[in-house]
Amino acid sequence: MVELEWIDKLRAVFESFGFASIETRSVEPVEVLLKQGDTDKEIYSIGRLLADPDDKAEPTYALHYDMTVPMARYVAANMNDLTFPFKRYQIQKAWRGERPQEGRFREFLQCDVDVVDTREIPLHFDAEIPVIMHEAVNAIGAGPLVTKINNRKVLEGYYAGLGITDTANAIRIIDKLDKIGAKGVGTMLGDELGLDGDAIAKVLGLAEIRGNDASVVQRVKALGVKSDLLDQGLDELHFVMRELERYPEGTFVADLSIARGLAYYTGTVYEAKFADFPDFPTVCGGGRYDNLVGDLINKRLPGIGISIGLTRIFAKLMREGRIQAGRKAPTDILVVHTQGAPYSVIRETAGALRARGLKVEQYHEDRKLKAQLKYAADKGIPWIWFPPAEAGGEHQVKNSATRDQTPADPATWLPE
Amino acid sequence: MVELEWIDKLRAVFESFGFASIETRSVEPVEVLLKQGDTDKEIYSIGRLLADPDDKAEPTYALHYDMTVPMARYVAANMNDLTFPFKRYQIQKAWRGERPQEGRFREFLQCDVDVVDTREIPLHFDAEIPVIMHEAVNAIGAGPLVTKINNRKVLEGYYAGLGITDTANAIRIIDKLDKIGAKGVGTMLGDELGLDGDAIAKVLGLAEIRGNDASVVQRVKALGVKSDLLDQGLDELHFVMRELERYPEGTFVADLSIARGLAYYTGTVYEAKFADFPDFPTVCGGGRYDNLVGDLINKRLPGIGISIGLTRIFAKLMREGRIQAGRKAPTDILVVHTQGAPYSVIRETAGALRARGLKVEQYHEDRKLKAQLKYAADKGIPWIWFPPAEAGGEHQVKNSATRDQTPADPATWLPE
Repeated sequence: MVELEWIDKLRAVFESFGFASIETRSVEPVEVLLKQGDTDKEIYSIGRLLADPDDKAEPTYALHYDMTVPMARYVAANMNDLTFPFKRYQIQKAWRGERPQEGRFREFLQCDVDVVDTREIPLHFDAEIPVIMHEAVNAIGAGPLVTKINNRKVLEGYYAGLGITDTANAIRIIDKLDKIGAKGVGTMLGDELGLDGDAIAKVLGLAEIRGNDASVVQRVKALGVKSDLLDQGLDELHFVMRELERYPEGTFVADLSIARGLAYYTGTVYEAKFADFPDFPTVCGGGRYDNLVGDLINKRLPGIGISIGLTRIFAKLMREGRIQAGRKAPTDILVVHTQGAPYSVIRETAGALRARGLKVEQYHEDRKLKAQLKYAADKGIPWIWFPPAEAGGEHQVKNSATRDQTPADPATWLPE
Repeated sequence: MVELEWIDKLRAVFESFGFASIETRSVEPVEVLLKQGDTDKEIYSIGRLLADPDDKAEPTYALHYDMTVPMARYVAANMNDLTFPFKRYQIQKAWRGERPQEGRFREFLQCDVDVVDTREIPLHFDAEIPVIMHEAVNAIGAGPLVTKINNRKVLEGYYAGLGITDTANAIRIIDKLDKIGAKGVGTMLGDELGLDGDAIAKVLGLAEIRGNDASVVQRVKALGVKSDLLDQGLDELHFVMRELERYPEGTFVADLSIARGLAYYTGTVYEAKFADFPDFPTVCGGGRYDNLVGDLINKRLPGIGISIGLTRIFAKLMREGRIQAGRKAPTDILVVHTQGAPYSVIRETAGALRARGLKVEQYHEDRKLKAQLKYAADKGIPWIWFPPAEAGGEHQVKNSATRDQTPADPATWLPE
């Protein structure tokens, strides 16, 4: 019930920005899922249980592991029916063959907002997307988060300016900074890309830069590396950070170490963590991907989006005692089975209360009152209703908390 | 968006009867799914895509094909934390390896309400459960349905009274009446159960009885077959039909031909179809199952529930033109990118409107007004907002339908 309440609040925030909900099927063709090259995700394939066990046919379909690839397929398949920029949110289950541990689940609820366009997507979206997720996380009381922002063009342009040709691999290595530290990254950069000590120092120097405002751009420039792509990336990062300067310090932080593992990002990238649990894994991530969608149909369809791991957040906050499960049922009123009363009187009492928008259970068994009251107490039902023993008699209602019991009319009574 | 609206309305109805939402994982152990003996459902197993293709290990988990078996496992696993009678609803995807055709889907949305108790479940629930689903279907505008009601004890008791020992097989055969007709059923009863012409006529005679009120009980008794179980079943059917007599004729119909294919039903059974499309498959079914849940943990845990095939209903009504897809986005207002206006003015305008509960998109690109208005028209956005070209200037709002454009204040304006 708490999770449903979260989803309702998230929907309200996304729709307040004009995003429409879509839902895609749980399975995608294996070839579409594998094309993204994100091979370290263990994918669950599906098969027919009654299939011949000797039939070694390759699996054709698998459960999706995120919402981005399914959304890309959806857009490609429905190009002519969509209005661009296409803005959608999607809250669905996803599946990954993880080893279950804190923050890692095999089945989890993922929640994405994305924009896909047939034209260049204005940079304003790069600033709006993290704001939407910031408001969403606050709406469910799961904040504060720290959202770190970088730009792939900065990384690629900087590495190119250093003479690194395999920038994709450099990004893959720098993405490990959190896990293996500066020394480990330096070693990999030397071993795998043949960088010398000076170049390694420059790469690590970039990754040390972070800040709350657009001033980080000056600090990158001060490192003395130059390329057109770097300049373009810094302009973009500057625009986004200037737009976000209106938020309290620490809400949105430029962090030049953020790379995001996925190969498909091409510009702004986001990564958010709990402010209070900095060692807990990333709960929110995304960025701009100019080629992912269009590649499916040989068109250019730039996209940008962000994704939040609801199950991961939910489990962590539950564990930390920040989510309290409430009563066991949504019921407002239990209408007791008054002994000797005609059943129709009891049923009509419940119906009259229900017709006025109240959530009403009848206790259906003609049983000692004590047992009926115990049921209400166990479920945490706040009001107990006593229909009269005969039609036309006096109704009474009892407040479970105060134990006050007063006469009441099912046609007019409202809870205090 | 229409489906989400349906789900919201269904939730409201189920909660108005005090049912709580639960969600169970998408997979269950294969052995649990197969135990129900419903072997004609083709189950999808899951496996690791990266698993060794020569590893012929039997699949351990499979996608659930309904909500009843998962709910039974959930109750068995959480016995000590639940309050009984446990009343839950569950709206989730389910999967079956069907050959896709009208009304049959491989992935579909199923919606169940069930009650499980540690004591005997009062018959009042047998009358309440179909009322809940009746109200739910009406709430989403998918009615009218005709809900047919029977009782397994009537069938088993009647067959036993005729001297048939294999009553389970007789039920399985009579369940085919819709598909193969009276002649086909008669032949099967003769061939498989060795019934003579007189017994076959008696079985088919029972199946012909239907009616809107409790009078059907007299007509069954008039057939002259006798057994204690039959009497008990008729008493139960009589109670339920008498409770439902208050509904318009044709809403709830006793139909002695209804058997329900599943082996686990033990009392009242339900089956509902569209009143307007009588040849369309069943859209709603359920009944009382006294042993399904408890069998998992060797306790007695009677249950009763009903299930509705949301995807089947949705697809049929869409096909019949009874569901109209509305506009493409939930957006109330498009705030245009006024040429020359500072972006902060545009952003703050949108923010002020959004803060007052409106659903607001900004057109993020500084582009000709005509293109921006086309976007609003294509998405069916009802209001267009024109921020001033400078801070402090006059705002205007335009009604997309009437084309009226008037000055307006983002801090106070509300749509008519």
